[in-house]
Amino acid sequence: MSGLVRYITGQCIRRSVSDIIAETASDIRTMQVRGAGRIARAGASALAIFSESYKGDSLDGFKTDVEAAARILLASRPTAVSLWNGVHASTKDIDLALTMSEARDSVVRNANAFVDMSVKALQAISEIGARTIRNGDVIMTHCNSSAALGVIKKAHDQGKDIKVYATESRPWRQGILTVGELVNAGIDTTLIVDSAVRTVMGRVDVALVGADTIMSNGALVNKIGTSQIALMADEARVRFSVCSETYKFSPMTIFGDEVTIEEREPGEVVSKGEVPDSVKIFNPVFDITPPKYIDGIITELGILSPGSVYDVMIRQFGYRALDSR
Amino acid sequence: MSGLVRYITGQCIRRSVSDIIAETASDIRTMQVRGAGRIARAGASALAIFSESYKGDSLDGFKTDVEAAARILLASRPTAVSLWNGVHASTKDIDLALTMSEARDSVVRNANAFVDMSVKALQAISEIGARTIRNGDVIMTHCNSSAALGVIKKAHDQGKDIKVYATESRPWRQGILTVGELVNAGIDTTLIVDSAVRTVMGRVDVALVGADTIMSNGALVNKIGTSQIALMADEARVRFSVCSETYKFSPMTIFGDEVTIEEREPGEVVSKGEVPDSVKIFNPVFDITPPKYIDGIITELGILSPGSVYDVMIRQFGYRALDSR
Amino acid sequence: MSGLVRYITGQCIRRSVSDIIAETASDIRTMQVRGAGRIARAGASALAIFSESYKGDSLDGFKTDVEAAARILLASRPTAVSLWNGVHASTKDIDLALTMSEARDSVVRNANAFVDMSVKALQAISEIGARTIRNGDVIMTHCNSSAALGVIKKAHDQGKDIKVYATESRPWRQGILTVGELVNAGIDTTLIVDSAVRTVMGRVDVALVGADTIMSNGALVNKIGTSQIALMADEARVRFSVCSETYKFSPMTIFGDEVTIEEREPGEVVSKGEVPDSVKIFNPVFDITPPKYIDGIITELGILSPGSVYDVMIRQFGYRALDSR
Amino acid sequence: MSGLVRYITGQCIRRSVSDIIAETASDIRTMQVRGAGRIARAGASALAIFSESYKGDSLDGFKTDVEAAARILLASRPTAVSLWNGVHASTKDIDLALTMSEARDSVVRNANAFVDMSVKALQAISEIGARTIRNGDVIMTHCNSSAALGVIKKAHDQGKDIKVYATESRPWRQGILTVGELVNAGIDTTLIVDSAVRTVMGRVDVALVGADTIMSNGALVNKIGTSQIALMADEARVRFSVCSETYKFSPMTIFGDEVTIEEREPGEVVSKGEVPDSVKIFNPVFDITPPKYIDGIITELGILSPGSVYDVMIRQFGYRALDSR
Amino acid sequence: MSGLVRYITGQCIRRSVSDIIAETASDIRTMQVRGAGRIARAGASALAIFSESYKGDSLDGFKTDVEAAARILLASRPTAVSLWNGVHASTKDIDLALTMSEARDSVVRNANAFVDMSVKALQAISEIGARTIRNGDVIMTHCNSSAALGVIKKAHDQGKDIKVYATESRPWRQGILTVGELVNAGIDTTLIVDSAVRTVMGRVDVALVGADTIMSNGALVNKIGTSQIALMADEARVRFSVCSETYKFSPMTIFGDEVTIEEREPGEVVSKGEVPDSVKIFNPVFDITPPKYIDGIITELGILSPGSVYDVMIRQFGYRALDSR
Amino acid sequence: MSGLVRYITGQCIRRSVSDIIAETASDIRTMQVRGAGRIARAGASALAIFSESYKGDSLDGFKTDVEAAARILLASRPTAVSLWNGVHASTKDIDLALTMSEARDSVVRNANAFVDMSVKALQAISEIGARTIRNGDVIMTHCNSSAALGVIKKAHDQGKDIKVYATESRPWRQGILTVGELVNAGIDTTLIVDSAVRTVMGRVDVALVGADTIMSNGALVNKIGTSQIALMADEARVRFSVCSETYKFSPMTIFGDEVTIEEREPGEVVSKGEVPDSVKIFNPVFDITPPKYIDGIITELGILSPGSVYDVMIRQFGYRALDSR
Repeated sequence: MSGLVRYITGQCIRRSVSDIIAETASDIRTMQVRGAGRIARAGASALAIFSESYKGDSLDGFKTDVEAAARILLASRPTAVSLWNGVHASTKDIDLALTMSEARDSVVRNANAFVDMSVKALQAISEIGARTIRNGDVIMTHCNSSAALGVIKKAHDQGKDIKVYATESRPWRQGILTVGELVNAGIDTTLIVDSAVRTVMGRVDVALVGADTIMSNGALVNKIGTSQIALMADEARVRFSVCSETYKFSPMTIFGDEVTIEEREPGEVVSKGEVPDSVKIFNPVFDITPPKYIDGIITELGILSPGSVYDVMIRQFGYRALDSR
Repeated sequence: MSGLVRYITGQCIRRSVSDIIAETASDIRTMQVRGAGRIARAGASALAIFSESYKGDSLDGFKTDVEAAARILLASRPTAVSLWNGVHASTKDIDLALTMSEARDSVVRNANAFVDMSVKALQAISEIGARTIRNGDVIMTHCNSSAALGVIKKAHDQGKDIKVYATESRPWRQGILTVGELVNAGIDTTLIVDSAVRTVMGRVDVALVGADTIMSNGALVNKIGTSQIALMADEARVRFSVCSETYKFSPMTIFGDEVTIEEREPGEVVSKGEVPDSVKIFNPVFDITPPKYIDGIITELGILSPGSVYDVMIRQFGYRALDSR
Repeated sequence: MSGLVRYITGQCIRRSVSDIIAETASDIRTMQVRGAGRIARAGASALAIFSESYKGDSLDGFKTDVEAAARILLASRPTAVSLWNGVHASTKDIDLALTMSEARDSVVRNANAFVDMSVKALQAISEIGARTIRNGDVIMTHCNSSAALGVIKKAHDQGKDIKVYATESRPWRQGILTVGELVNAGIDTTLIVDSAVRTVMGRVDVALVGADTIMSNGALVNKIGTSQIALMADEARVRFSVCSETYKFSPMTIFGDEVTIEEREPGEVVSKGEVPDSVKIFNPVFDITPPKYIDGIITELGILSPGSVYDVMIRQFGYRALDSR
Repeated sequence: MSGLVRYITGQCIRRSVSDIIAETASDIRTMQVRGAGRIARAGASALAIFSESYKGDSLDGFKTDVEAAARILLASRPTAVSLWNGVHASTKDIDLALTMSEARDSVVRNANAFVDMSVKALQAISEIGARTIRNGDVIMTHCNSSAALGVIKKAHDQGKDIKVYATESRPWRQGILTVGELVNAGIDTTLIVDSAVRTVMGRVDVALVGADTIMSNGALVNKIGTSQIALMADEARVRFSVCSETYKFSPMTIFGDEVTIEEREPGEVVSKGEVPDSVKIFNPVFDITPPKYIDGIITELGILSPGSVYDVMIRQFGYRALDSR
Repeated sequence: MSGLVRYITGQCIRRSVSDIIAETASDIRTMQVRGAGRIARAGASALAIFSESYKGDSLDGFKTDVEAAARILLASRPTAVSLWNGVHASTKDIDLALTMSEARDSVVRNANAFVDMSVKALQAISEIGARTIRNGDVIMTHCNSSAALGVIKKAHDQGKDIKVYATESRPWRQGILTVGELVNAGIDTTLIVDSAVRTVMGRVDVALVGADTIMSNGALVNKIGTSQIALMADEARVRFSVCSETYKFSPMTIFGDEVTIEEREPGEVVSKGEVPDSVKIFNPVFDITPPKYIDGIITELGILSPGSVYDVMIRQFGYRALDSR
Repeated sequence: MSGLVRYITGQCIRRSVSDIIAETASDIRTMQVRGAGRIARAGASALAIFSESYKGDSLDGFKTDVEAAARILLASRPTAVSLWNGVHASTKDIDLALTMSEARDSVVRNANAFVDMSVKALQAISEIGARTIRNGDVIMTHCNSSAALGVIKKAHDQGKDIKVYATESRPWRQGILTVGELVNAGIDTTLIVDSAVRTVMGRVDVALVGADTIMSNGALVNKIGTSQIALMADEARVRFSVCSETYKFSPMTIFGDEVTIEEREPGEVVSKGEVPDSVKIFNPVFDITPPKYIDGIITELGILSPGSVYDVMIRQFGYRALDSR
């Protein structure tokens, strides 16, 4: 079990299992555990450890305590879609249990299955996505998505002759990281400014991007600029595919919660004094790509239509989990 | 006359009129005279001065000499559309003349008319364009176009309550200049990165851009990123207008000459050492916006459909001038 | 139980439970029970009452009798999608039962659950839909949909500053009701004729309409004019959302039954003698909006893509229920 | 000459030719002369009469006086596009004249030619447009356009078997007039509400509408609802043709003057007391159809692309006339 | 049982049940059993016969042997989507069995159910599809699809007055078969060349095509030319429906396997010597129609959105079956 | 002069100049002179010869006789757009002449100029079009257009590395000619069936087709299948250019004359007995491509927007020539 914990957070050693829920919540809150996948796995693992070492023998008591633990974990990062997914994937069968031990086993089994699937998800997405890349394909990518880059590198590893255009991705210029990563993998890579996307789109065969969140109607929330690329791919009949673990599918959006698009500091766009103070800077982190521009979502559960996102979520949690809101 | 010359170049004093053609060609070639409008006016003025002081009295001799002068001027910047326009606007009636003096007068009159119209063009475009702006309009602009900014500032001067979104316009970031210029004029201005265009397009009423060149089929050649903005305006039913002097209409494109899209230095996109050497940088200066995304072209001759560009050119020069190619 | 009956029909008192199926069928047939929701709940409640008071103890006998009861109910309004949904939602688990009492309990439980969900659906849709409305949003609505107006009023109750454009909705002019209802709720409301939709669409943030029926491929059947608004929203990149209880999803359309679009009296369009007799009047009640123009369907089960409608129906009834056709 | 005046206004008899300019301006101002064509012809005729009876013999004097007369006429209805066209068509060659009599003759000749063309324009449009209608065609029309109905009736007179759908055209319901006019001509005519356009568009072969004004970029200003029909025709690959005399081409729009879209009384949409006072009514008379939805403009000078509108205007008046603004 | 086998292959008589798997695999490999439906039913039937006569009594042994049998069958035509579907539909519940006999029964029951559904699928599709055809409809079809023609003939049998346009479908010209089949059924049928599709599309009410394969994102793989027809239907707002048994839904595409588009012999396009040897011939058999052009997929399980394809597949096999890859 | 005649028809020797009009008309009527260009040049030349040898000296007499000659020529092929263009180009200045000799000279000069331009037009189009082709371009062409193939071969002659996809162009399969012609010129050429256009369009940079006729609104009438290719080019953001001599611009369409789309023999599509007699064959020769899908029209007068076609026609003939209808 502690191996599992270590796997998740990379280094931590815990003295007492009884603290696992509070400590994990604290680690998440203080950003010691970061990244959508890590947070989700930390939440699920904490519930597995908590359940495995649970001492009581009342089914009702166990259910009450697990629900309390889940609430504590969820409160550590209320807007984290992946954490919600990890916690509810762990507890989803608890109502079906007839005995305390059945309930406990279901939590342990589901939590471990979630962690396992989550860990393997990136690898699965790489393999699935790489099969869709043909020899000679020219690929466009945006920002710095592990999932999208995993697909590209896998296709290259398979000996396919590919070429990549990567955008600079202002304001943070994650494209600098992307092109470095790709040429280090031996891939023919060209950097362009974000304004040059339409100029090169005519030569592109497929656009591959990652996801911050997927909404229940199939819309994609991702790095600012993504929706522009999707529109330009659509204009030029270029395939536009999203690479995303399913724990990024947001159950909150089923009930209408908008994905909040964070606006960040002007200082990311201009240096101090570069423009007069009266100039406003609008610096949104994400934008929303409508489902009509998305040809497929490549997940660890296979390639989906945006029209299937709601159903995948319901299949994973059921309407019951959604009632917990 | 020398006043005219001074007006064009701002400072030069010439010793001998006979040198006017060679000196002007040299000034253009060495970039002492720069800018589409300035170059065009310099060429037309040189022909006016040359003709006015012409000593011979043979009509044929004059025509031969003017044609030679025109060739020298055109050779100083063969790709400059505005120079071609200025030179041919000056000589367009020469074949209609029956006497040497008629020919000379036609060159002087046409050259002066061209210079006059050219000087007033920006002002005319500002006034025409400003009439199309309504109180409360939200405007998007790109790069740093004198013509587009002239329209915006004129509309503001008329007391209209407007708001402007300006793009950063990587790699040169001319948007920094634009927002400074606009807030100094007292206009409510917001800077965005190029990737945020689609996010704000839903709030925009009209997109206003300048032109480097207009092609004979109505397509627009302008700063990289322009065509993306046009596409996104079209997607959101936002009016997309181009502000352009007619001397930017390219007669060369009538005969199929592609507008060469210059590719510039990688160093404009990344600093030295910022990315591995094997990363390619594709850095085109312009892109091409198809006529179907252009609602109107605002010129000193009024607001045109892209479908009228060819006709405006033919009306100004006739098929004859085009034969000179 | 009689309380439940009273809830549904509002006033009726029944002498004998044994008459419940025949009486309910009669009430539906004679229009004493009207409205999609009411009809559906009446059918489900009748089956619950019938089952609860069932005297036999043979499983097969019970199943045969329930099926006969279901047939009687369905025959009272064969084209009523919601009735079909209510009846089949009640009987869906009957084949899984191993004993008579299990079968009876499943009908009672499922019927009550359906009634419960149906009653709460409008409220749930209001809350879910209201979360998608932002402060400052301008909303367009059409005709007089309880579900759409519920969303709008809820958003207003939450203190959001919203503005509504409502269409007149000829020929019945239900827009007159709508604008009255909205201004009475204190909402800034503007009435337009149906021809003015495109003119104001540029200022609209979201279009909200109700549903008469949703087809299995995600298409929407709703008040004449709805599909035009959807097209115009699409043209202007405006979000178009449908507010619909899931009992309006039509299982009949799974098997190709077209939704019949009723044509109504000329007298609704012109007064007697207003036009010559030889003028034909075409007066269809509904039109069909293709799924590609629908951004999301707001239901009591959350926000769906049109691509998920078939799956929601199958999940609620299973292929087995569909075989009953 | 007075015959001409009578022709124009139908009944007036003037005492003195010298009053012709003032009287005509007064007739226009007081709405005794109404309708785009009538106003234009009255203006042109007044200039013809004025010129014909002009007593002076100085060319400069005549030009000054004609310009003054033109100004008086234009001031009588400054927003009337057709009046501007009629006046400038009459005076367009005055600067080319070398003698007073040449100038006078040119005004008389051009004014008469304009009147003649204007009178024949509707007939010419009917004939040209009717050739584009095929046997068996189903036509949609909107509002009550003389030009569009002329085309339809002409096609019917030619023995073509046609069928027409006419919209009600709220709020004024001019469709009632249209369907009466068409069935009286023996044409198979069906009236629909404005919301039913998309439902019937699938059966339509061509949509024919009139024009209030045509803008210099080819956009159409016409009765509210026209742009919706154009969009729906475009969606269904149905030909959309505009029937318009060229005197409705607006030179004002060349220089950016927006066509003012009049907003009219709430009382045209709702009866007094029909809705609460706090309900706003937005009742615009016209909307703007973008050129991309227009397949052709049927004029007395033939069938044009919207891309040719600017050129037709320049050909008729020249840049010089435009300078008079 | 042997009756079943005979049904599938039409004539074969087997000596020994023990050979059933090997023989069936051989029949498929050698093309004695051909056609998507036949292959699938042969595979499922072989597993039913194999299981029914299975002698062992160990659950684990049975599962191991059935899996081996499945592998042998699948290897006989690795790219046959329908075979994969038939085999996995038969074995899908095997892991749920607690005893050997439960496992055996589940294979027999599921295999027979699959065969039964498969045999009835075409009939079901005809009936469902025919309901969507209205009296007076004009239908376009392509190539020679049993499912599409079944729908058309059923609609005709129902007394609907329909008219069909059928494409020639070069290079094999299956349209010749199609038009013969349709006129023999008494249907008004017109043959056109493949280039004339857009010309007649304006008169068409619905396009009906078959399917070779449906991909997990809802895209259609079908006879070359299908995607063009879909695009042209979309351009003209004509309904485009696909007729397909669900065993043509490809689970391989869930995991990114591209559907290989076979390129066939030049000799199918040109005769020997008809063109110089240096002319290349590109002769692909299929093309891919994107889901956005598909209004509905008519299956034996009803009419689906392309957005529901993934879910239908998961519902039929579950994620577990997919793991077998 | 007879040299000119010989040039046109290739071989004929005439005995008497006085017969020139009648003989030319006869040659055109009997198809001894064929092809749009040849017919036009024959008509213009006949007028030149007729005028040159004209014996009378009355201006009015000459004009009357030339008009009669023109009528005879036009009657020999009333639907030939190019003949109309050739005849009217020859006579266009006749009304400006003040003397008989001026009139005669203008016909001779204009006729010869027309013949000269017409002969050079194909060469001019090749040169202009070839400039728009870039090294590495992949080109699609349809049918067998001299103008389009001229452009392609010229680009190849300039050393550009190009690749061509040519359609089979059923029913006549002119693609067989096209691919032979192209590979003989040493060009990398691939033949596809007409149904494979969309499959290869993703790899194409520009589509080049010829023209049968260009309509006054910019629409293209050309070989059946052209409009499909234009639509597919538009879908994939591929440039679609039309190669056309301006004598194919149809003045008849200015006044609404539809271009008649000939329907040809069933025998071109199927062999005798290949299909039952009751199968209808619809075999139209041409289709109509709307201007919105045309990026540019490459003519001997340069590259035009479809929006400029009307103006080019008016500039060449003036409204006066059009009045002759």
